[in-house]
Amino acid sequence: MPTASPDRRVRRTRELLRRALVELILETGYDRITVQHIIDRADVGRSTFYAHYTDKDDLLLGNLEELAAAFEEHMERHFASRTEPNPVLAAFEHAERQRNLYKALAGRRGAEVIRAGLRRRIEEVMARRMPEFLPRRDGAVPVEVTMEFLLSSLLGLLVWWLDDDLPYTAEEMADMYMRLIAPGVQAVYGI
Amino acid sequence: MPTASPDRRVRRTRELLRRALVELILETGYDRITVQHIIDRADVGRSTFYAHYTDKDDLLLGNLEELAAAFEEHMERHFASRTEPNPVLAAFEHAERQRNLYKALAGRRGAEVIRAGLRRRIEEVMARRMPEFLPRRDGAVPVEVTMEFLLSSLLGLLVWWLDDDLPYTAEEMADMYMRLIAPGVQAVYGI
Repeated sequence: MPTASPDRRVRRTRELLRRALVELILETGYDRITVQHIIDRADVGRSTFYAHYTDKDDLLLGNLEELAAAFEEHMERHFASRTEPNPVLAAFEHAERQRNLYKALAGRRGAEVIRAGLRRRIEEVMARRMPEFLPRRDGAVPVEVTMEFLLSSLLGLLVWWLDDDLPYTAEEMADMYMRLIAPGVQAVYGI
Repeated sequence: MPTASPDRRVRRTRELLRRALVELILETGYDRITVQHIIDRADVGRSTFYAHYTDKDDLLLGNLEELAAAFEEHMERHFASRTEPNPVLAAFEHAERQRNLYKALAGRRGAEVIRAGLRRRIEEVMARRMPEFLPRRDGAVPVEVTMEFLLSSLLGLLVWWLDDDLPYTAEEMADMYMRLIAPGVQAVYGI
């Protein structure tokens, strides 16, 4: 039997560390975890850990980067494959599929730095697409206020849903969010 | 000249420590502050600090308690004095009046523990008053989803407003928030 290629070994080690991190966050919360806990759980040597990551924050941020890349890929596929793409539904669907990773990174047991990072990612996506949807209009709410409103309520529902172990489907969540926000945004911007 | 009474001395010391804490949070962020920084800024002896608080978290939480008590008093006065009380306006007005304290406690430079505490407080107030406003209704969004929506968007706007140094008045913020949320909630619950 051939031994695993170096690339595959790297991927395996990283996957073991990722799983250990996610499990430990969900069990005890990010703040209480040490590198020792992670290597014990992953059954990986200390020097192997440090060959891949400088510390637990680095492991966490590395996983956030991977999740963000996967999220962007998912969004692109969603936009390419649907005649009426709904970015809100796409976001909930991605979280549903990767629920443990999302919950560990963005839920109450995760780290504040990650919620801030996730927020920035979604904010960037929204900032690119929002101005075309929200026309300038006398008496309308300023776009930056509406952006903050849409973003904080979306993240609030997303984190609540993950922490509550997905009591509704992604479709239901996206539908409820749209029903709550759309009439106000339509009334304010006359669309 | 008579010397200050013990009670007044206690109040003065606590006020000095509170001011030092708020200034330091706004300058450098809560996480970077030590008790030494606080007593240097307040010009108070180390033993005096520890006669009042066990550590910097205790000082922070003590101030949150005082702010929460002042907030509840303010809400009661607001409800007693207006024929059409608006709790959202009352909340923004209170934050406007105590902007530095609010910004230090709830803003981006504050501590996650405080945002979580503030959130719980507002959640309690909302949970008491919401069910009377949101009738059970077939096809309506579940009340806990609507609560999360209203709460996260209100806190999002409040923190954004504080961190941006109050670019609008409390009345404008309350008005924009109501314009964004009311049509959706009305449509969903048929009110």
